[in-house]
Amino acid sequence: MGFGLGSVLMRLGLRSPDEASVDAITLFVVLLTSCIVIGHLLEKSRWLTESITALAIGLCCGIVFLLTTEGKSSHVLVFSEDLFFIYLLPPIIFNAGFQVKKKQFFRNFMTIILFGAVGSLISFAIISLGSALLFKKLDIGFLEIGDYLALGAIFSATDSVCTLQVLNQEERPLLYSLVFGEGVVNDATSVVLFNAIQRFDLSHITSTITLQLFGNFLYLFFSSTVLGVAVGLLSAYIIKKLYIGRHSTDREVALMILMAYLSYMMAELFYLSGILTVFFCGIVMSHYTWHNVTESSRITTKHAFATLSFVSEIFIFLYVGMDAMDIEKWAVVSKSPGTSVGVSLILLALVLIGRAAFVFPLSFISNLTKKSQNDKIGFKQQVTIWWAGLMRGAVSVALAYNQFTRSGHTQLLGNAIMITSTITVVLFTTVVGGLLTKPLIKLLLPPPKHSGNIIFSELSSPKSFNIPLLANGQESDPDMGADVPHEDGLRLLWSTPSHTVHHYWRKFDNAVMRPVFGGRGFVPCVPGSPTEAIIQ
Amino acid sequence: MGFGLGSVLMRLGLRSPDEASVDAITLFVVLLTSCIVIGHLLEKSRWLTESITALAIGLCCGIVFLLTTEGKSSHVLVFSEDLFFIYLLPPIIFNAGFQVKKKQFFRNFMTIILFGAVGSLISFAIISLGSALLFKKLDIGFLEIGDYLALGAIFSATDSVCTLQVLNQEERPLLYSLVFGEGVVNDATSVVLFNAIQRFDLSHITSTITLQLFGNFLYLFFSSTVLGVAVGLLSAYIIKKLYIGRHSTDREVALMILMAYLSYMMAELFYLSGILTVFFCGIVMSHYTWHNVTESSRITTKHAFATLSFVSEIFIFLYVGMDAMDIEKWAVVSKSPGTSVGVSLILLALVLIGRAAFVFPLSFISNLTKKSQNDKIGFKQQVTIWWAGLMRGAVSVALAYNQFTRSGHTQLLGNAIMITSTITVVLFTTVVGGLLTKPLIKLLLPPPKHSGNIIFSELSSPKSFNIPLLANGQESDPDMGADVPHEDGLRLLWSTPSHTVHHYWRKFDNAVMRPVFGGRGFVPCVPGSPTEAIIQ
Repeated sequence: MGFGLGSVLMRLGLRSPDEASVDAITLFVVLLTSCIVIGHLLEKSRWLTESITALAIGLCCGIVFLLTTEGKSSHVLVFSEDLFFIYLLPPIIFNAGFQVKKKQFFRNFMTIILFGAVGSLISFAIISLGSALLFKKLDIGFLEIGDYLALGAIFSATDSVCTLQVLNQEERPLLYSLVFGEGVVNDATSVVLFNAIQRFDLSHITSTITLQLFGNFLYLFFSSTVLGVAVGLLSAYIIKKLYIGRHSTDREVALMILMAYLSYMMAELFYLSGILTVFFCGIVMSHYTWHNVTESSRITTKHAFATLSFVSEIFIFLYVGMDAMDIEKWAVVSKSPGTSVGVSLILLALVLIGRAAFVFPLSFISNLTKKSQNDKIGFKQQVTIWWAGLMRGAVSVALAYNQFTRSGHTQLLGNAIMITSTITVVLFTTVVGGLLTKPLIKLLLPPPKHSGNIIFSELSSPKSFNIPLLANGQESDPDMGADVPHEDGLRLLWSTPSHTVHHYWRKFDNAVMRPVFGGRGFVPCVPGSPTEAIIQ
Repeated sequence: MGFGLGSVLMRLGLRSPDEASVDAITLFVVLLTSCIVIGHLLEKSRWLTESITALAIGLCCGIVFLLTTEGKSSHVLVFSEDLFFIYLLPPIIFNAGFQVKKKQFFRNFMTIILFGAVGSLISFAIISLGSALLFKKLDIGFLEIGDYLALGAIFSATDSVCTLQVLNQEERPLLYSLVFGEGVVNDATSVVLFNAIQRFDLSHITSTITLQLFGNFLYLFFSSTVLGVAVGLLSAYIIKKLYIGRHSTDREVALMILMAYLSYMMAELFYLSGILTVFFCGIVMSHYTWHNVTESSRITTKHAFATLSFVSEIFIFLYVGMDAMDIEKWAVVSKSPGTSVGVSLILLALVLIGRAAFVFPLSFISNLTKKSQNDKIGFKQQVTIWWAGLMRGAVSVALAYNQFTRSGHTQLLGNAIMITSTITVVLFTTVVGGLLTKPLIKLLLPPPKHSGNIIFSELSSPKSFNIPLLANGQESDPDMGADVPHEDGLRLLWSTPSHTVHHYWRKFDNAVMRPVFGGRGFVPCVPGSPTEAIIQ
């Protein structure tokens, strides 16, 4: 496949802009294909994951470009925020919602929100304050207070893909759902926070503005969720009402994909958080819509969404890798390399501290509210959660571009340093963090059968896995009566308050929601859920 | 869903370019969703097909835009050639190759090439000559000889989607495969022809240039086919060699989609015909690659490709409809409405004549070579073929934009008239032709059981349906011996020459190709082919 790249490099000078885009697309398709093939060959490797492979290939490609064209062709490589937020992120987040084990997710909902929202806010505060205090001692250009707050938001956006690739969802459902759920809520929190900061005049912060900021944040959080749920329900209703004959699989699949994307774009249109919207749209679609379509459509959508998400992820890592080698942004910084290294180190330290500052205290608080041992988060698991959120990814890069390229591109020293430092931190945490993740997790969490404590905590109460909120597993009966624990309502509310909420939700779901919007048990044939394999 | 459009219109003035693209995407997603829902509701209609619905919705939308913004927002609507040729056309053509009934296609291969390539050349010659002679009498701007030849290529590109939506593949395999195959080969021919014309200096045509043109045409035709077959075989080989464990459906699906797209982009990169390449890549992929993947991947790719193609088709019609209402290009023309109408009428007449000039003579020639009655093309079927190719579609629009916007956009009278006339002809043929297709086909070809002649010709020789080239049906045994007709080789060659080619191809396929590239019978589980339903 090497000749594709060779011919691209050869022809770059000869082609019109249209034709250059043909080159760029071909190059990206070739690279994506190589990433998938190489990723498959390296699957058994002790250190490498698919995302690091993609990042490395992207970096190599960037270097080859740089050497061959002597910095002339940086145009092909510039990171496009639009491409990222409009095309690559939505399928990843939607698929996350679509394939999430809803039972686990809602069971740990409060802990996830605690980590994802409150934790991100703590991390945001520490990084903003820290950078505002420490950067003054370094010789960088003028930064406004809004820039420091933006930095906080940029660096509180974690990227837990690496860890999730290593963690086994079947072996450690609690840990997986926490890391996974925190990742999604954290993405949404930092983007919402970032947008809120950009929209307010922060030259003089008063308590009123702080309150408004917080109000805006809550408003975005809730309205985005409501929009996602609404679009998801609408899709379920349309497909249930119209597709009685259900003779066109293509139409069903197209409708599901289009409406999922619609939820994201509508959120963006109304200045809400598309990430949250499309995530909840995915959850609702897998609970209702997915059960209203034919079996072929189910298999198709399940794998098509996963494939889209998979390709988008690889694309992003490839892109970040290639973009890092874009020479233009390094030109300004190279005059003061010491400052740039200093900024990167400070940011890295703040990231480490900011994360430790909430994971351990919040775990402690979360553990206080849990009665049973199996719901508590052990110390080793806390370390894993802390570790999983150290990596910074494409969201940080995209937000950094948004904030620091608005006034005069990367020509200003301050802006250029911020962008290159973001890239440095992203590359460093992803590569070093990514390489160490597999060994670290093997060390901290050996396979369950060798770890007495964890296996005990996970197996001691199998019952707790049988109380679903949005029940979706094979074991849950569509007739909800069978699922109610054998205790009376009042005692149940006392001992496991959230389980009781689940109980009443299921009652409501079966009595009101399912008859209108379809779902498991309200369609002729009842296979598994999107999270479970139907045909392997 | 009306509020989406309303808010788009409301905000168009207020947004930055980035945000305007969010508006445009949301609008298109909403419109696509409506087209699918409305198309489903109108399915039983006597007149309407999905493509006309999409075109009508696009037109309405364009009118609403025009009225609301008073012509200011034409930017959202401008037809982008890149979008069409890089993103929308490849999935449609690939899916055509992937889902084609290969047996029928290769059985009628010579007739299809005759209609698609030779026929398109005849049509091209008549339209070029006719327009060169007739346009001189009208008062339009200066047109070069290259422009007239380009017009010939533009208007020899047919769009048989409408007819294919109405024809039943099971009831009339011969007719369907002819119309379908001609459509694909015709698309490729006209695009290749168009590119060849643009690349040569045509100010003074000599016999050398004509010969070069023809040589270039043949070169493009064969090299494109070879490239498509090569990429298809490579994908089959990679997936067969690497995916022994076959534990990742997503990787298989991603690889198939990426390599299909890669074949198209590589053809474009090497200035070949992407349409032909991706079509043959689709055929090879459905014959080899598709059999090397897991059953989930098979179901997923089959429906995912069909869905992509379906959505792209609707998108194109919607787009052409909206673009037709773009005010800028009508402004210049409105000064001389008579000329514009005259040009459109002349083109329409030339299209009708050009098509008749080859369908009936070539059918006659084709019938001469056929021995058995069932292979001959009856008069009513000839009329259907003639009718199916009258519609002009997005390929014509895209080529017209390419030719007539290069020198000074639509400000020049000649260019403006050519573009508006193309749109007029496309709209007229698609709407009028599309509306009449269903009734006409019902009139010409009533369901087989009432049409003695046709049922006879189709059932008299069931054997002929059992001799596959790239055999793929359920009835064909992987062990090829069973398929050889009970006649000796020489007599067979005499009576049915093309069947004998099939016979030796199958021998070669089983002995050499399948062991290397996989395919039916060379993978553990053997379900149906992409053209057959597995789970309905």
